Amino acid sequence: MLPGLSDEQVRALRRVGRAWGRVSAPPEVWHRALPVEPDLGAFPARAEAGSAWFGRLVPLSPLRTRAAGGRRTVEPAGPAAVGTSGTGASRRVRRLLLGAPLASSAFVTERMRKLVALPVLSADALSSVAYGPEAMLAVLVLAGAAGLAYSFPVAAVIVFLMLAVGVSYRQTIRAYPHGGGSYIVAGDNLGPTAGLVAAAGLMTDYVLTVAVSIASGIAAITSALPGLTPWTVPLGVLVIVALLAGNLRGIRQAGALFAAPTYAFVIAMFALIGAGLVDAAGTGFQPVAPPVLPVTEAVGLLLITRAFSSGATAMTGIEAISNAVPAFRPVEWRNARTTLSWMVGLLIAMFAGIVGLIHLTGVVPRSQETVLSQLARLSFGGGWMYVYIQAATAAVLLLAANTAYNDFPRVLSLLARDDYAPKTFLRLGDRLAYSRSIVLLSLAAALVFIAFEGRTDALIPLYAVGVFLAFTLSQSGMVVHWWRRRDPHWRKSLVFNATGAVLSGLVLLTAGVSKFTSGAWVALIAVLLFLLVTTRIRSHYTAARAYLRLRPHAVELPARTGAGPLAPEIPAAGPPGRPGPASDRETEELPEEIHHLSVVAVATLDLAAMRTLAYAASLGQPVLTVHISTTEDEQRRFRAYWSLWGDHLPLQTVLSPYRAVVAPLVQYIETLHRLNPGLTLTVILPEIVTRQRRYQPLHSRTAGRLRRALRHLPKIVITTVPFHLP
Amino acid sequence: MLPGLSDEQVRALRRVGRAWGRVSAPPEVWHRALPVEPDLGAFPARAEAGSAWFGRLVPLSPLRTRAAGGRRTVEPAGPAAVGTSGTGASRRVRRLLLGAPLASSAFVTERMRKLVALPVLSADALSSVAYGPEAMLAVLVLAGAAGLAYSFPVAAVIVFLMLAVGVSYRQTIRAYPHGGGSYIVAGDNLGPTAGLVAAAGLMTDYVLTVAVSIASGIAAITSALPGLTPWTVPLGVLVIVALLAGNLRGIRQAGALFAAPTYAFVIAMFALIGAGLVDAAGTGFQPVAPPVLPVTEAVGLLLITRAFSSGATAMTGIEAISNAVPAFRPVEWRNARTTLSWMVGLLIAMFAGIVGLIHLTGVVPRSQETVLSQLARLSFGGGWMYVYIQAATAAVLLLAANTAYNDFPRVLSLLARDDYAPKTFLRLGDRLAYSRSIVLLSLAAALVFIAFEGRTDALIPLYAVGVFLAFTLSQSGMVVHWWRRRDPHWRKSLVFNATGAVLSGLVLLTAGVSKFTSGAWVALIAVLLFLLVTTRIRSHYTAARAYLRLRPHAVELPARTGAGPLAPEIPAAGPPGRPGPASDRETEELPEEIHHLSVVAVATLDLAAMRTLAYAASLGQPVLTVHISTTEDEQRRFRAYWSLWGDHLPLQTVLSPYRAVVAPLVQYIETLHRLNPGLTLTVILPEIVTRQRRYQPLHSRTAGRLRRALRHLPKIVITTVPFHLP
Repeated sequence: MLPGLSDEQVRALRRVGRAWGRVSAPPEVWHRALPVEPDLGAFPARAEAGSAWFGRLVPLSPLRTRAAGGRRTVEPAGPAAVGTSGTGASRRVRRLLLGAPLASSAFVTERMRKLVALPVLSADALSSVAYGPEAMLAVLVLAGAAGLAYSFPVAAVIVFLMLAVGVSYRQTIRAYPHGGGSYIVAGDNLGPTAGLVAAAGLMTDYVLTVAVSIASGIAAITSALPGLTPWTVPLGVLVIVALLAGNLRGIRQAGALFAAPTYAFVIAMFALIGAGLVDAAGTGFQPVAPPVLPVTEAVGLLLITRAFSSGATAMTGIEAISNAVPAFRPVEWRNARTTLSWMVGLLIAMFAGIVGLIHLTGVVPRSQETVLSQLARLSFGGGWMYVYIQAATAAVLLLAANTAYNDFPRVLSLLARDDYAPKTFLRLGDRLAYSRSIVLLSLAAALVFIAFEGRTDALIPLYAVGVFLAFTLSQSGMVVHWWRRRDPHWRKSLVFNATGAVLSGLVLLTAGVSKFTSGAWVALIAVLLFLLVTTRIRSHYTAARAYLRLRPHAVELPARTGAGPLAPEIPAAGPPGRPGPASDRETEELPEEIHHLSVVAVATLDLAAMRTLAYAASLGQPVLTVHISTTEDEQRRFRAYWSLWGDHLPLQTVLSPYRAVVAPLVQYIETLHRLNPGLTLTVILPEIVTRQRRYQPLHSRTAGRLRRALRHLPKIVITTVPFHLP
Repeated sequence: MLPGLSDEQVRALRRVGRAWGRVSAPPEVWHRALPVEPDLGAFPARAEAGSAWFGRLVPLSPLRTRAAGGRRTVEPAGPAAVGTSGTGASRRVRRLLLGAPLASSAFVTERMRKLVALPVLSADALSSVAYGPEAMLAVLVLAGAAGLAYSFPVAAVIVFLMLAVGVSYRQTIRAYPHGGGSYIVAGDNLGPTAGLVAAAGLMTDYVLTVAVSIASGIAAITSALPGLTPWTVPLGVLVIVALLAGNLRGIRQAGALFAAPTYAFVIAMFALIGAGLVDAAGTGFQPVAPPVLPVTEAVGLLLITRAFSSGATAMTGIEAISNAVPAFRPVEWRNARTTLSWMVGLLIAMFAGIVGLIHLTGVVPRSQETVLSQLARLSFGGGWMYVYIQAATAAVLLLAANTAYNDFPRVLSLLARDDYAPKTFLRLGDRLAYSRSIVLLSLAAALVFIAFEGRTDALIPLYAVGVFLAFTLSQSGMVVHWWRRRDPHWRKSLVFNATGAVLSGLVLLTAGVSKFTSGAWVALIAVLLFLLVTTRIRSHYTAARAYLRLRPHAVELPARTGAGPLAPEIPAAGPPGRPGPASDRETEELPEEIHHLSVVAVATLDLAAMRTLAYAASLGQPVLTVHISTTEDEQRRFRAYWSLWGDHLPLQTVLSPYRAVVAPLVQYIETLHRLNPGLTLTVILPEIVTRQRRYQPLHSRTAGRLRRALRHLPKIVITTVPFHLP
């Protein structure tokens, strides 16, 4: 977070420091003058997992007092003490949904056993079996029985692709034991633009993972309960809201609860395939002929490539393990590789099994019922085994959608770290979740889901492009990596990665061309827009950083007039407008360069106003009080009160006969600044704060409005002095 | 705006002033010390109308410099100079819709001639003829021809009512020459609760005036162009948006342009009635029998009273002139009375004429076409005269809707003045319009319009209750007024007002009972809710004011230690935690009671941070710098930079291993406050401000977030030091 200083900046820092030495007291004096003991202890050390059952956070006791100090005891404030004042309805809803804010808390960092890591990290990949084969068949079926005949060869190519990409990612795991996402690998080896393109692919991938997984999960439910079909869109949005709330709360990523759906799904799939094979054995493995279908397209290269790129969506999520290597128990990379191999094995077995079963049973995609549901109904009727299969499918798809909630914020925070995205995506919310990324992902996914009415088949064409864009760049990056590094066995790894890259590139090309009109063009535009926005963000950050850099500019020091070290004397009498260098550039680096005028705006003479006046006067800088009167009578009255009080501070009343208050005040301050550009004007305002939030709108928001109106003027500082109503 | 001080408060003010005298320098010193000339001139005097053609605002040159000063010239900033920095899209849309913000501008206050005042102020009342008779017939027609036979007697009662209420309001005009709205008259004479109930009636009345007028105006258009019927709701919302934008800009209320539609409508109505009578004369005034109608209800008291209260909506807007007496040329009340008589005369003539014409032509209400349109088609076919009548009707209804935009904010601002509504409704926006009230009215009207799908007949039942509630209370108030005051002729006035009150009360009762189930209950609930909310708002304001009152509490003065007058010496060395009275009550009224500690939060050592440090140090109060580090390495590095700089200010680093920045900072400051409740902590933060608004989200919003998190803690002042990127 803290950027290093260049040599030039260090020199500038030293130089400014020496100048401060001339004007300020030595450090000992400052330190002794401090009316408090600043050291209040530190946040506790890293917390261990254990007590957290469902969440990934454990509360910590806030700021421990130093044992050595001993003079006082800090009462732990308790996790609910920060920011819980106010009882507004919005706050109550927030707390209900998200839980109390955690003032001090820690991530639980768990190391996963392979048997836990497998289901947690492969939910996304394995769940793709629920829609991948169906997406492939949905294209082939357009050519009728002639098209369906191609399902075996296309599936065989996809299986080969899975194998190649799997082996390729085994190489990545070895090379990037700290986690090698596509953005990092492509950026490291192919340059920042390639990294950005990969990131663009990933981000669309994650958004679509949420949308497709939920669409497919709801299809699993509506296949079992057709009455729910009209509610597809509201149900999907409800699921997204639930994921949003859960992730803002900070859902745990790992653990038995999250392993269950994947294992249940794997068991369900193997049961289904097993039962189907037993049935087929009874008929001597004689395939049932599919029903006669209307032929709307001829078999051709375009149809087959479209089927291929649709079926290839069954590979999405295969990269998850390579991102999460550090979450494994040691030796991390070795365990991760083994788990990856298991996953690819399971994926291939399930994919091939389902495609085979479809062939044997002659099932064809239908819009009302998923292929998996049809298969399950054929084997088990409508009994509990059927319900189990549908429930397990829906559960694993929901879990797959949830994995995007872990990955999307991670990529976005990497982009933010590298200046390609707003720094706000680096910040952790109340409950230590990347709240803004989570909200962004939910919004995008909900938008896509609603726009495509939750239909899996409509979403698939967009999906493939993003996924394979990231795959191709990541694996091409690995090729360059091996070529440059030439570690032991680099040749073998390079060949594996090159195979993966070439094959992924071919899928990308096929998907891009064959589905250009049916959605891939959206992905292209999204990537271009993403590149444009991210590079502009970065160039803004670069320019801002250059401007903010410390540099040896001329420190302008007025002739020394003060008595003691930094005793801010009341400026000597003289013609008004005396202030030193009449510059409104904000480059002051020394206390002596700053010439103060505090402007206090008061409306009435009540306790809050008196306290604000006392605050301003106690700063010991020249103070000017401004009162905006709407009538001359009011002006006279205010002046009378002022002299009753004793006329202790200079007062200026401004007459605003049209009842506006903020505009004349802003204009007065602006004019004051224009006439005295060398002065730093501190505008001090009382602000009434109510205990109950619902009463806050009853009080003036002048402070906020003035802040917005004045923030674009240089050298104007805004101070609000809150006054709390009981 | 400036409340007067009670004797007790004046004594408290004097006492505090004397205490200041002990600690501060005499006024001459302060005034001489001021580095600026505070008197920048005044806003110009009241502007005259003339240049403004369509708007009710004239721009003024901002802050004139004093001619006497002569030393400098203030360049007029021009109306566009304030608040126009930033080029965000939202701002551009705002400017397009609302025009440039007017930094200095004035209301044009026009005095109206009677011939201008008549159309401007009676648009609401006269336009009611477009829906009143129809609403009456729509109820009677349910009983078929037998029901329609009652249209003459019911209309006669309504005409008598118009006469009585008109005469009654003539008395109000005389008694309240400064404008006697129902809220004021009822509140003055019957007590605040009656005033609030009248206000509740008025507010619902204004919302419904907008909704009903627009619904009826669109009905006039769709009668001519039936193809637009499915677009009723979007069209209505569009009109509301146009009214919203126009009124936020500041539409002029008076002038030739606003007189035209009413005169056009009056001419149209008389042309229609005249042509109808000529036609009828041709057939010897033999009424055409209405078509045979399905009878769904028997003629009964309930039906007739319902018809009566629906027809009485033709009287809405009759009170407008009594609100606007000061807008007339002198002698105001006499001119206003004359205009009122003209208006009532026109209203009665038009109402009676239309009812008579309906009787003669046998026209019955139909859902596809308004009665007026049917009448016009009968007399003029589809020619240009028909188009003219429909256009004039639509225009006058639109103008009637616009009058609610003048009246609603006025009532709300009166409520706000009397503490019954948030004070924000007193404030004028960028363009000197009561922007918040205008937005509120538009939202409410749009909601009602959409909920009732823009159907006039569905809106009418809600309408009558609010209107007659305000009428009844206002006229009852006048009865009390005359009884108490006993001016000359009070007996006559009392009788007229009493007649009006009794009749209005009867209509209110009939409307409330006969339409209770079809919508009047909504009005009842709205009034109760309104009473509840307004009284709670008032009690909050009362409590807040009591708490903020200056009162002679014990001023706690520490022993004097300072050297010069208010020279804020660096506190004497001593054990930390020395601060004086350890109280966190915010009752300090003297500079000496305030013990400062400035806490500067810095993230990096850049130009903005250096400037913030310089600012903090130059205040001459003890400064503590806090840095939140996310890693120990970062902590070490920051400390190293700090000593490179020269360790000029005390530094405390806080380790936050989980990357959160705001939470640990808040907690640190909170703990510091809890341990040192007597100190006033000023939290000083740098804030990066970008010139282009769209880049602002790229920079940390820590200042805003800290402000929100800390605002509920006592004695913590937040200061932001803006740093502007070029």
